[in-house]
Amino acid sequence: MAFRQKHLLGIEPLHPTEITTILDVADSYVDLNRQANKHSDALAGMTQINMFFENSTRTQSSFELAGKRLGADVMNMAMQASSIKKGETLIDTALTLNAMHPDLLVVRHPHSGAVDLLAQKVNCAVLNAGDGRHEHPTQALLDALTIRRAKGRLHRLSIAICGDIAHSRVARSNLILLGKMENRVRLVGPPTLIPAGMNELGCEVYEDMEEGLKDVDVVMMLRLQKERMDGGFIPSEREYFHRYGLDAAKLAHAKDDAIVMHPGPMNRGVEIDGTIADDINRSVIQEQVEMGVAVRMAAMDLLARNLRAEKAAANTGVMA
Amino acid sequence: MAFRQKHLLGIEPLHPTEITTILDVADSYVDLNRQANKHSDALAGMTQINMFFENSTRTQSSFELAGKRLGADVMNMAMQASSIKKGETLIDTALTLNAMHPDLLVVRHPHSGAVDLLAQKVNCAVLNAGDGRHEHPTQALLDALTIRRAKGRLHRLSIAICGDIAHSRVARSNLILLGKMENRVRLVGPPTLIPAGMNELGCEVYEDMEEGLKDVDVVMMLRLQKERMDGGFIPSEREYFHRYGLDAAKLAHAKDDAIVMHPGPMNRGVEIDGTIADDINRSVIQEQVEMGVAVRMAAMDLLARNLRAEKAAANTGVMA
Amino acid sequence: MAFRQKHLLGIEPLHPTEITTILDVADSYVDLNRQANKHSDALAGMTQINMFFENSTRTQSSFELAGKRLGADVMNMAMQASSIKKGETLIDTALTLNAMHPDLLVVRHPHSGAVDLLAQKVNCAVLNAGDGRHEHPTQALLDALTIRRAKGRLHRLSIAICGDIAHSRVARSNLILLGKMENRVRLVGPPTLIPAGMNELGCEVYEDMEEGLKDVDVVMMLRLQKERMDGGFIPSEREYFHRYGLDAAKLAHAKDDAIVMHPGPMNRGVEIDGTIADDINRSVIQEQVEMGVAVRMAAMDLLARNLRAEKAAANTGVMA
Repeated sequence: MAFRQKHLLGIEPLHPTEITTILDVADSYVDLNRQANKHSDALAGMTQINMFFENSTRTQSSFELAGKRLGADVMNMAMQASSIKKGETLIDTALTLNAMHPDLLVVRHPHSGAVDLLAQKVNCAVLNAGDGRHEHPTQALLDALTIRRAKGRLHRLSIAICGDIAHSRVARSNLILLGKMENRVRLVGPPTLIPAGMNELGCEVYEDMEEGLKDVDVVMMLRLQKERMDGGFIPSEREYFHRYGLDAAKLAHAKDDAIVMHPGPMNRGVEIDGTIADDINRSVIQEQVEMGVAVRMAAMDLLARNLRAEKAAANTGVMA
Repeated sequence: MAFRQKHLLGIEPLHPTEITTILDVADSYVDLNRQANKHSDALAGMTQINMFFENSTRTQSSFELAGKRLGADVMNMAMQASSIKKGETLIDTALTLNAMHPDLLVVRHPHSGAVDLLAQKVNCAVLNAGDGRHEHPTQALLDALTIRRAKGRLHRLSIAICGDIAHSRVARSNLILLGKMENRVRLVGPPTLIPAGMNELGCEVYEDMEEGLKDVDVVMMLRLQKERMDGGFIPSEREYFHRYGLDAAKLAHAKDDAIVMHPGPMNRGVEIDGTIADDINRSVIQEQVEMGVAVRMAAMDLLARNLRAEKAAANTGVMA
Repeated sequence: MAFRQKHLLGIEPLHPTEITTILDVADSYVDLNRQANKHSDALAGMTQINMFFENSTRTQSSFELAGKRLGADVMNMAMQASSIKKGETLIDTALTLNAMHPDLLVVRHPHSGAVDLLAQKVNCAVLNAGDGRHEHPTQALLDALTIRRAKGRLHRLSIAICGDIAHSRVARSNLILLGKMENRVRLVGPPTLIPAGMNELGCEVYEDMEEGLKDVDVVMMLRLQKERMDGGFIPSEREYFHRYGLDAAKLAHAKDDAIVMHPGPMNRGVEIDGTIADDINRSVIQEQVEMGVAVRMAAMDLLARNLRAEKAAANTGVMA
């Protein structure tokens, strides 16, 4: 089993075989979660702390259920952004938690890089649950698992990521993952919402939705992140939907069996038409949520195996 | 064991033998909860989500302890009323949760009917923890268990429900349950707080407390729901207590061994005199809280048995 | 094993051998918490309720992890100060919780004596997690364990408690514990922040830090409790740091191997210089956090043993 990471801070550090390993383990947890008894003891006796400096009911719930189903003791900490004003205080908080001996620390933070910084200060495994505009690795992994199960493979696919690329860590982590697995990724959206230089990264950039969706296998819609648009261009919702919202007419340009994805929560009638979102022949939006729990179980299981191996090696070293 | 429901949405759909089954199972959990080790594995490996769109420390705590003692993984979700403005968003929230494969979903919602709507959209068992002015079935069941244990039976009793009937789902669920079990129910309160047409439902309606309490076996006081009185008549607390607050003088009209109940939290000196509430020879208010945990354990246990049987049947079907 | 208490309300009621028993049991939990599998079944099947009427992320987390690692079902209740305005309502809340049959009730309350009052009304074991300016026994016990592990003993040490003594329940509980164990305690701080008559309690009182720290084994800094200073003297932070903040120059007057303690969270640059706080040769601040979880596990374990013995005796009595 090739997974050698101590933390899951982003998709960037992962080797393609490590991505495949996570998805393979996740597949087995999908089966487990469909049983009446959905318990494993992969994290039995271990402590998982969820430390969310930014609200996210959906992501936090997914991590909480994942840990509990694996037998961990799970503790949620809602951190007030106000009580953590200075970098040094974030470190003090991290050191305090670290002294309580968690095994897994799940962190969401509004600042890019804050989770990496924190990981350097603690002994436990750290999972990035979203940091600023930087990375959101478990979202990219759950999207990858959803695609692999729907399409039967995760390579040589043509995938359009549509909408507000500029403010989206989801887009960023997906772009890295899909590139590593040798897919063709298109970015579709208004020029103001696509950062410059993306085509140099191997992406094709489209301003027109119909062109951008032509013959793709996967249409990945993004949430319009109005809360992250500070002072910049904010489109009217009606105009945005007209040009970039996914409806039947635009989707007709994709392949006949193209799937539709959205990370949620959806703004129906803004990024996506409600009937498309609910069309069980095209939309895999509910599957994405289901895969989310499974992928987080897989990631924590794999990190815990490495933690245990490390502790066992340390103990042997002491004895020798 | 005759309990055939998929959900517990109200008392209305329950057959009297199903009510008796819940109370019988609850009796055994009362015993368990009095032990030092109060754990069962009735919900082992199952996931319970508490989704409260309306605050209720008492009801949520009771469901949380019930689930944990049965071995479930319990997750609380405090839902902001603000984030759930439209019906379609409630459905999206339900579908998202459903995709995480909970087994039991406990829902409290300010709108009558919202819990029924939600139950139609999900695969798991849904328990109504109070919806608007509609139903609050576990409250009626815990009241029934308290009465049955105090009086030795749950039929042919004379029971007065007193106070703010109009705004009370507790009254509504109790009325249905006590009627199904063939008791005589009286409603006592000011005409402005009793909906029209109640006497057509087989209840006797009294405006005068002393008349209404005459020779009853059970005095069930209600909380004055000021927060649900929108624009209508709001009595002064002092006047209300004078006419409808339960004190020793009014209670003297009931049978000598009549018991006093209140769903809590109490407004002492408004609906009920503090000394009556604390009189351990008459008041069973603490017993009601104790029965609450046991009844919720019983309801979730019975629903989980049906869920498991359903999954087992589905699996057999696939194999055949 | 000599520990005969029903509750842990303060250090005052404890015999020195009981303190030693708690610390001995805690030592074994320190070892357990450093393992990958940090689970025991000391509280299996028992219910722990954390009832915090005052926010304290750190203390609540420590109790929550302690209970979960011992196998208890743990429920957190964030009590709104607003919903608990009158003494009688505190009692109603206590009686309601009591009826749900918790085994351990952990309470923090802004009023001195509130936790003692509550303990008289319930059947379960009550642990004081801080009440007003009165006591904070688990903090004193974790400090004692930290000292005992660092110094090899907990008697005949010279210990300086420095800063805002007047507003600190931490100081009060520590003073009692360290006195019981036959240590010499000095109080160091501005006269306005040291209550009158402390030297009659056997403490030496110093206004000057350098004098006060001379040749001590332990320097225990306190947090400046600005939130508890109602209308009285509030020093400027800069002036306070100049006269009473711990820095290298002042610490040089203590013994060469003196340790530095702080209950957290720290105001760096106010009570303590950041470089001293982070100096792993002198500061045991992270160890204090680690010992906190272990000491709380020990206290709850010992109380639970007494609870079980009491229940067993009661059952035998019934049978006889």
